[in-house]
Amino acid sequence: MSELDLVVRNARAVTASDIISCDIGVREGRIVSIGEALLKAAREIDAAGRYVTPGGVDAHCHLDQPHAAPIRMADDFTTGSRSAACGGTTTIIPFAAQMKGQSLLEAVAEYHGKAEGKAHVDYAFHLIVTDPTDEVIGKELPTLIGDGYTSFKIYMTYDDLKIDDRQIIELLDVARRYSAMPMVHAENAECIEWLTKKLEAAGRTAPRWHAESRPMLAEREATHRIITYAELIDVPLLIVHVSGKDVVEQIRWARSRGLRILAETCPQYLFLTAADLGLDDSYEGARCVCSPPPRDKTSQKAIWDGLADGTFTVFSSDHAPYRFLGEDGKHPGGKEVAFRHIPNGIPGLETRMPLLWSEGVLKRRITPQKFVELTATNPAKTYGLFPKKGTIAVGADADLVVWEAKETTICNAMLHHAVDYTPYDGMSLQAWPAMTLLRGNVVWNGKEFAGDLAGRFLPCGRPSLYPDV
Amino acid sequence: MSELDLVVRNARAVTASDIISCDIGVREGRIVSIGEALLKAAREIDAAGRYVTPGGVDAHCHLDQPHAAPIRMADDFTTGSRSAACGGTTTIIPFAAQMKGQSLLEAVAEYHGKAEGKAHVDYAFHLIVTDPTDEVIGKELPTLIGDGYTSFKIYMTYDDLKIDDRQIIELLDVARRYSAMPMVHAENAECIEWLTKKLEAAGRTAPRWHAESRPMLAEREATHRIITYAELIDVPLLIVHVSGKDVVEQIRWARSRGLRILAETCPQYLFLTAADLGLDDSYEGARCVCSPPPRDKTSQKAIWDGLADGTFTVFSSDHAPYRFLGEDGKHPGGKEVAFRHIPNGIPGLETRMPLLWSEGVLKRRITPQKFVELTATNPAKTYGLFPKKGTIAVGADADLVVWEAKETTICNAMLHHAVDYTPYDGMSLQAWPAMTLLRGNVVWNGKEFAGDLAGRFLPCGRPSLYPDV
Amino acid sequence: MSELDLVVRNARAVTASDIISCDIGVREGRIVSIGEALLKAAREIDAAGRYVTPGGVDAHCHLDQPHAAPIRMADDFTTGSRSAACGGTTTIIPFAAQMKGQSLLEAVAEYHGKAEGKAHVDYAFHLIVTDPTDEVIGKELPTLIGDGYTSFKIYMTYDDLKIDDRQIIELLDVARRYSAMPMVHAENAECIEWLTKKLEAAGRTAPRWHAESRPMLAEREATHRIITYAELIDVPLLIVHVSGKDVVEQIRWARSRGLRILAETCPQYLFLTAADLGLDDSYEGARCVCSPPPRDKTSQKAIWDGLADGTFTVFSSDHAPYRFLGEDGKHPGGKEVAFRHIPNGIPGLETRMPLLWSEGVLKRRITPQKFVELTATNPAKTYGLFPKKGTIAVGADADLVVWEAKETTICNAMLHHAVDYTPYDGMSLQAWPAMTLLRGNVVWNGKEFAGDLAGRFLPCGRPSLYPDV
Amino acid sequence: MSELDLVVRNARAVTASDIISCDIGVREGRIVSIGEALLKAAREIDAAGRYVTPGGVDAHCHLDQPHAAPIRMADDFTTGSRSAACGGTTTIIPFAAQMKGQSLLEAVAEYHGKAEGKAHVDYAFHLIVTDPTDEVIGKELPTLIGDGYTSFKIYMTYDDLKIDDRQIIELLDVARRYSAMPMVHAENAECIEWLTKKLEAAGRTAPRWHAESRPMLAEREATHRIITYAELIDVPLLIVHVSGKDVVEQIRWARSRGLRILAETCPQYLFLTAADLGLDDSYEGARCVCSPPPRDKTSQKAIWDGLADGTFTVFSSDHAPYRFLGEDGKHPGGKEVAFRHIPNGIPGLETRMPLLWSEGVLKRRITPQKFVELTATNPAKTYGLFPKKGTIAVGADADLVVWEAKETTICNAMLHHAVDYTPYDGMSLQAWPAMTLLRGNVVWNGKEFAGDLAGRFLPCGRPSLYPDV
Repeated sequence: MSELDLVVRNARAVTASDIISCDIGVREGRIVSIGEALLKAAREIDAAGRYVTPGGVDAHCHLDQPHAAPIRMADDFTTGSRSAACGGTTTIIPFAAQMKGQSLLEAVAEYHGKAEGKAHVDYAFHLIVTDPTDEVIGKELPTLIGDGYTSFKIYMTYDDLKIDDRQIIELLDVARRYSAMPMVHAENAECIEWLTKKLEAAGRTAPRWHAESRPMLAEREATHRIITYAELIDVPLLIVHVSGKDVVEQIRWARSRGLRILAETCPQYLFLTAADLGLDDSYEGARCVCSPPPRDKTSQKAIWDGLADGTFTVFSSDHAPYRFLGEDGKHPGGKEVAFRHIPNGIPGLETRMPLLWSEGVLKRRITPQKFVELTATNPAKTYGLFPKKGTIAVGADADLVVWEAKETTICNAMLHHAVDYTPYDGMSLQAWPAMTLLRGNVVWNGKEFAGDLAGRFLPCGRPSLYPDV
Repeated sequence: MSELDLVVRNARAVTASDIISCDIGVREGRIVSIGEALLKAAREIDAAGRYVTPGGVDAHCHLDQPHAAPIRMADDFTTGSRSAACGGTTTIIPFAAQMKGQSLLEAVAEYHGKAEGKAHVDYAFHLIVTDPTDEVIGKELPTLIGDGYTSFKIYMTYDDLKIDDRQIIELLDVARRYSAMPMVHAENAECIEWLTKKLEAAGRTAPRWHAESRPMLAEREATHRIITYAELIDVPLLIVHVSGKDVVEQIRWARSRGLRILAETCPQYLFLTAADLGLDDSYEGARCVCSPPPRDKTSQKAIWDGLADGTFTVFSSDHAPYRFLGEDGKHPGGKEVAFRHIPNGIPGLETRMPLLWSEGVLKRRITPQKFVELTATNPAKTYGLFPKKGTIAVGADADLVVWEAKETTICNAMLHHAVDYTPYDGMSLQAWPAMTLLRGNVVWNGKEFAGDLAGRFLPCGRPSLYPDV
Repeated sequence: MSELDLVVRNARAVTASDIISCDIGVREGRIVSIGEALLKAAREIDAAGRYVTPGGVDAHCHLDQPHAAPIRMADDFTTGSRSAACGGTTTIIPFAAQMKGQSLLEAVAEYHGKAEGKAHVDYAFHLIVTDPTDEVIGKELPTLIGDGYTSFKIYMTYDDLKIDDRQIIELLDVARRYSAMPMVHAENAECIEWLTKKLEAAGRTAPRWHAESRPMLAEREATHRIITYAELIDVPLLIVHVSGKDVVEQIRWARSRGLRILAETCPQYLFLTAADLGLDDSYEGARCVCSPPPRDKTSQKAIWDGLADGTFTVFSSDHAPYRFLGEDGKHPGGKEVAFRHIPNGIPGLETRMPLLWSEGVLKRRITPQKFVELTATNPAKTYGLFPKKGTIAVGADADLVVWEAKETTICNAMLHHAVDYTPYDGMSLQAWPAMTLLRGNVVWNGKEFAGDLAGRFLPCGRPSLYPDV
Repeated sequence: MSELDLVVRNARAVTASDIISCDIGVREGRIVSIGEALLKAAREIDAAGRYVTPGGVDAHCHLDQPHAAPIRMADDFTTGSRSAACGGTTTIIPFAAQMKGQSLLEAVAEYHGKAEGKAHVDYAFHLIVTDPTDEVIGKELPTLIGDGYTSFKIYMTYDDLKIDDRQIIELLDVARRYSAMPMVHAENAECIEWLTKKLEAAGRTAPRWHAESRPMLAEREATHRIITYAELIDVPLLIVHVSGKDVVEQIRWARSRGLRILAETCPQYLFLTAADLGLDDSYEGARCVCSPPPRDKTSQKAIWDGLADGTFTVFSSDHAPYRFLGEDGKHPGGKEVAFRHIPNGIPGLETRMPLLWSEGVLKRRITPQKFVELTATNPAKTYGLFPKKGTIAVGADADLVVWEAKETTICNAMLHHAVDYTPYDGMSLQAWPAMTLLRGNVVWNGKEFAGDLAGRFLPCGRPSLYPDV
């Protein structure tokens, strides 16, 4: 065994299966040995018996995507990935979003332009297919899947993103034929549009009505529908950002029938409710406008239960970085726009891991292993980045988070994104990353960001739900 | 890092989370390092790129338990553990069964007498409580739980084993108070007795009627009932040997309500059906008499689906070694006894792992990681033997199985138990263990048994469903 | 057509199917014609366009049953049937309860002695079997079923009433063989006993703890168990006094599997909650101690939904007439006894029909036809009294209720039972019977009771779930 | 009471609630008295103790609707209603189908032209809305609902009939606002189109592939979706022609949540399976091409269970009269067209009632009362024709069927439609109508048709799921 560049000593290393007291040896950015008392290396870090988890893989985040002017995303790849690193996330999978009329190849090229040399953590891309032309279906997608873009997102809602059911079925068929992983935003667009118009007609346009306009039944229906299409085509798929009880039931029902339906949830469905959008017509709640909207306490419990019992396999942020104030934010120039025009989405790249570690692991709702599975291992497996990413094992990249038990009250000033608020402001956590390593290099030392734009593009391999032959 | 006793090179090591190409370094029977190119050791084994899994933990097997004369179990700890080793199992958890009227401490002492110095693999004990006197409840059980007997089995059927519902509730309460893991044989005794009498009155006593006498509804009812008691007491528990669809539904229902209900299944519910007990009154089917009985193809599929989707967390053999022929077997002196008198149970310690690896992993019904989780990691966690047992990780015992892809047709002659048949006779598998290591020592080399009665008693720690404070 | 004794004119007659504007012609106590303009009769009653429903059949009420001294039931057949008549009920089916050790024939004879010549409305008897000896099973029950006692009740709880599971199965088998209708009080006795002891040990003996001692899971479990026994035997049965959501789910599940499981509910589960037993340790709540206890608002809604959608087929009072004050009541001599010793049961014979008409029909939760089905037609069919009782049709007894829309605030003084309270005191209803006719004779005229002990014994025929051959 | 025109003597009259031995007195076509021994009338019919049920109300049948040339429906209002009468149906509710681009008022006028003076039984119309323009939504529908067209059908499949989801939602909102009853053909058009193309590409165009092209999941999905829209709008609706198990589960789920979802099924789902479309590529199975297609034995049982337990409230024929032979039939000029071009639908007006009476009532799967409820009472209530139609009660039209127990082997020659086959050819029934009366007049005497085009238009009133205020 040749010499090590780095040893992380006295770790309580956690994988999706194990908790191991060990030293972790790193060479050229990769873990090359795990042992009880490794030889001395050039660089040494003493974990001092603390939990060390794999660097997080955030499989659902939006960076530098366009929006109708004047609104725009506050985070580009640089600020977004900086925020990720400081929260313990070392791999992100944002979206390369096709615009209607645009070539998908072109879209991918465009997003590479936004990311290359500008990211502090490693990144892959999901595709967003909004215009599945014959060219896209027949050529571009197969090519891109072969080139390392093995997942794509389908929107069942949002006028500028959604595709119709016939197109969805065709895309799922492409996924099956080329072994790609579809991920679906499941909400029934017509229910939402009908309710929105009705609310608008009644003058109900404050942020809180956003929740009324997107009831759980709209999410439940779309979930049932997309499950049916997956069953029709015999293709695996993942439902993103599941918000509540009735949807959880649909997913359990699908799985109990032997279907390969995965599900993701996000911090907002554990820690927020519709009440955070406001109990009156105040505009403050615009900060928490996202879709699907947070539900109620009953649904929060259903989501926690689903995390614990394996119904959910992936825990992501759905980071969508819109400022509250500013011409380009949710409250443009202080103007209170109707909820229909408030950009959907909330920031969360940096808080995702600490929230789940503190409120999930330390409060014994989930084990440390389940935390690792949800935040790193499963996202990496699901999207073809495993075992390079997502675990602490020989051969994997040395992406590590050292956890420190220290009371931390969240405030936006301590975060590293470019958004001017966090929905979790004032919440008190019992832990925070003391250190984040990307391929053996410290990018966050518990006090200061230490990244140097070293993030690399990761071509994705075969999703785990397509077992190798 | 001091010197290694053994290195297993070029392993494709599997944990419940990962598949790692590595060398595994062993010192004094424990894994002390895992690395890409470990230093040379005194002893070297070349795994040649093959899958290496943790030694199996068979959490449900019966050895040397008494039966009404003249019938007796064919396997004692020596033959049983030999069979286990040759099938890739390095830890067994048989039962220390209290007889009615007997002190539980005495029962434990008795079984230690049967096991000590006579086992080829490591062993722990589940208790079987058949006589929960005040002494047992108030003193013996708390003492024994503290001493490393942290699980006990409750029978809801069998006249000589079953306890009544009030006793069950009291025992569950003890489990909760002292953090023990109850495991339950769930069948409704009254349904079975009523049907048995009715069948007997009609002269229906051939082996196949055994299946008729224990319909799935009897198992479903008892499962619902014990789930209710677990809910009442707020205690985790595990339902052993789940046989079919309606029971799987009860378990999913319980879990979806947030209850900590685990479930075990066994090879007989994947590979046998009631038809194996006979389609006519032939006595041959007595070989496959076990309880609950195997069901039908629909239930087999439900069990496979339940393995894949996480409904089942443990896969055991329920090895119950009764010979078919011989005065002391199922067919005593060639006499065809009524099904009520045929001993319940079939052998399976040696075939458990190869059956699931070949038909589960190689046929892509489950991943290698899921195999490890079901056969080793989860049993070890559930019963407090983790992480010493059940995984391949630094600090764990060097219990390893090297798998070889080779077509193997099962016949009883190749097996190492003392039973004169296997229910899987003639079945063709695509793999078999090429080597089994117990704490770094080869006990099975793919051709010959090489054990030396080195098995040690393992006191069990806190079950994983009781998270540490 | 020979002459009529009575015509009820201008009725808006309701059956379980129809609402008919008609005259109703009666001769010798039976309806002999229904027409648009019947010939004049000796006696005429002008219904004035009001709703006229069949006289209620209360299939679950307790009269003159013994209790451990000094407690005793306040209502005998005279006061109980008087109360029934004034509330629109013209047929009651109380219980002939066997005491342990007693012959069932003897018990029946004893209850005939209590009833004969002492009842103001017609009556049949359910049997209560508490001691199913061979004599009872083999001779008495078959004889009694043949003699018009075609239903019997099984208790799964209460020390002096419950029988064990083996006995239950045998009784269900008798029911199947002789076409009798079993009705079951489904609560798990062991859960209740365990909780009761625990509460008592903690000094929690006030009335409100009664609800804690009998949680819904105890009722749900017993319901699942008895459904299983019905499935085993292939016999229809009825679950009495279903209290809440989880039990409703069990019944729907059973029915969706094609099982003949009927269910009854009672006013207390629509109008009371556990809060009526008290929010603190006050003894006032003793009035509402009954089993199963009322649950919560969610369960109330589930019960209403179950009435509307056909899950419930019978609506009864479960009248159990214990005074609150008095040496022989729930509050003996003003002494506050532990909840275990408070007699279980509340009065309700007189309020059953007005409560459901006012809160069900007039508030449009159910149709008038559904009201008739639940309060008269189905009870009569289920227990073999149809079509003599339970409908308005040619050939049926002229048992009629004329409804008047008038605001009525319930107070105990207006009721005609011998109990000193009603749990619905102060509740305001929008209707009350303006007249009750028993076989053509007015027994309640809206102001005064007018009965004359004319009630007759009704031998029951074949229950409707056993269709004739 | 003035004189009677007709008395039907010695009837065993059945309503949805009762079975009554009585005479039925009729004047001017209406039932005016029911009694034990009515006065003599001008005309007397002796029912001789036979069952007499209300004339059937077939709430789902197609007559004289257009189809793409050369195919056309064989039955117009004259032959269709003749066939209905001879099978015991005295009220039909065919469709007034709007063509895209057509005014709905115009469509209604057109169908009145087809029906007026040409029908042998009474008729109402459901509307079919295929082009919900602002004019239709805002003016025509409200007007028509007020004029007695209180139900309309929505198609979720068929290119020339289906409307999109936004239009569906708008129509349901109209239904809610004006108290109309929507009925929905629920199949997912995109699943069907995708499968059809795939089958066609594989050369699979024989009739049996029709069943493959419309799997149960397509029906299940559309059912879940339309239930969601009903929940969104808070409107009752009825799912027509439910074919199998998974759809039944959706309906039970909806009802258990308190939603007002009704369901209809048809004889083809009780008596046919997909095998009747052919097991090979024979064209004979074209006769049984209908949508949704018949399923399998498991689904047949689920449908029977659903009839018995109240899941289904309406039993209709979905009569769609296409000849098998002839230029204008399913097998045009002997040419075997691809299944896509075979007209969907089978004849059934005449066989509906005898099939259910013989196989349902006489085989004790349902009671006579349930038969009446399903075939007459509920259809009349659901669509606002009650109590004029659908029951035997004073005030109702004297529409009656006298049943005769006689073995009858179905053959097309005995039927009175203009179609050249029946899917039930060769099936042996145990009963057939001995007489059908429409408003007191005999239209079928058990041997010969005796109608005289006396059928009248019935304006529909308020559907029963909108209770009056």
